[in-house]
Amino acid sequence: MASYNVAPLSKLIEQFERLPGIGSKTAQRLAYFVLNMEKSQAQEFSTAIIDAHEKIRYCEICCNFSDQELCPVCRNSTRDKSVICVVETPRDAIALENTHEYDGVYHVLHGAISPLNGVGPDQLYIKQLLNRLSDDTVKEVIMATNPTVEGEATAMYLSRLLKPMGIKVTRLAYGIPVGGDLEYADEVTLARALEGRNEL
Amino acid sequence: MASYNVAPLSKLIEQFERLPGIGSKTAQRLAYFVLNMEKSQAQEFSTAIIDAHEKIRYCEICCNFSDQELCPVCRNSTRDKSVICVVETPRDAIALENTHEYDGVYHVLHGAISPLNGVGPDQLYIKQLLNRLSDDTVKEVIMATNPTVEGEATAMYLSRLLKPMGIKVTRLAYGIPVGGDLEYADEVTLARALEGRNEL
Repeated sequence: MASYNVAPLSKLIEQFERLPGIGSKTAQRLAYFVLNMEKSQAQEFSTAIIDAHEKIRYCEICCNFSDQELCPVCRNSTRDKSVICVVETPRDAIALENTHEYDGVYHVLHGAISPLNGVGPDQLYIKQLLNRLSDDTVKEVIMATNPTVEGEATAMYLSRLLKPMGIKVTRLAYGIPVGGDLEYADEVTLARALEGRNEL
Repeated sequence: MASYNVAPLSKLIEQFERLPGIGSKTAQRLAYFVLNMEKSQAQEFSTAIIDAHEKIRYCEICCNFSDQELCPVCRNSTRDKSVICVVETPRDAIALENTHEYDGVYHVLHGAISPLNGVGPDQLYIKQLLNRLSDDTVKEVIMATNPTVEGEATAMYLSRLLKPMGIKVTRLAYGIPVGGDLEYADEVTLARALEGRNEL
């Protein structure tokens, strides 16, 4: 399909095709859209890509993305530094932030233990987490890794590492999603919901 | 959602959100993906956007995208210059190219007549089409505008303009799509398919 397109356009289409979830049809549509943008807008887009790469680094405390030494959450003096929520990716931290229910801090592992994909504990930002626990300020570590095999394994691994240090380690509750339909909940989720039932 | 993200990342997410069909969740996913790219890849992406803008112009004959004075189709001496297929957008030309059944040339209008959106014949590349018809080389003009109200109107407008010039004006056939299901074809399409039935 790209063969007919002129070279600079094919190249742009290829670039979009590399993005996750973007097929060749969508890549084409996006490339044409960019081509029809105002020149200044295209320039902005192009610069944003480079800027994000050049200006963003990991927060020195929680390893989340940051454009300064510390990320906005770690910089914020009103956040409760005694609770750390451990997540796999920065996006998980944003999801939790969006609940507006959490006022502790985060720790981003940048992945989960996955022997099949060759990811062991050493590839994750676990050492940085352990450093944060060395002075007795942290009272609780919440495991908010994904409810997948890898996420579970990571949570288990970390809890075994942290419990001997006398830190309370918790895990997000499993259960039926709010607004969900019991009929469509899978058996494992339903079993977990039953197991974790609360008194009314 | 973007409030929590650091500035260069929010900017990149915003840029992706501007693209058609990209919601805030997808924009976020794409921005994170770009952030995790190799620096050289990000550089390539950024350059491709600018390059497409700077190097692509309209073909001087058919108004399709081109990186040279003439587009690959108009440059190609084996293409039949006596048949012009009129399309709304460069993407439509690519769709026709992909059939490998057409060896004429194209003319890209860059839109369709749409009074509701304030697009009249003057906003389209119709003058350039008329210029091509001034010397008697063109024998047939195929209207391959979309089967929408706007596409129809444009086809009708052009055919009224061209017929007095003694040029054969044709329209793509309407009918049921190949591989489609009669049951799911809409009434208008089915009526047109019946109307345009061919002897076996």
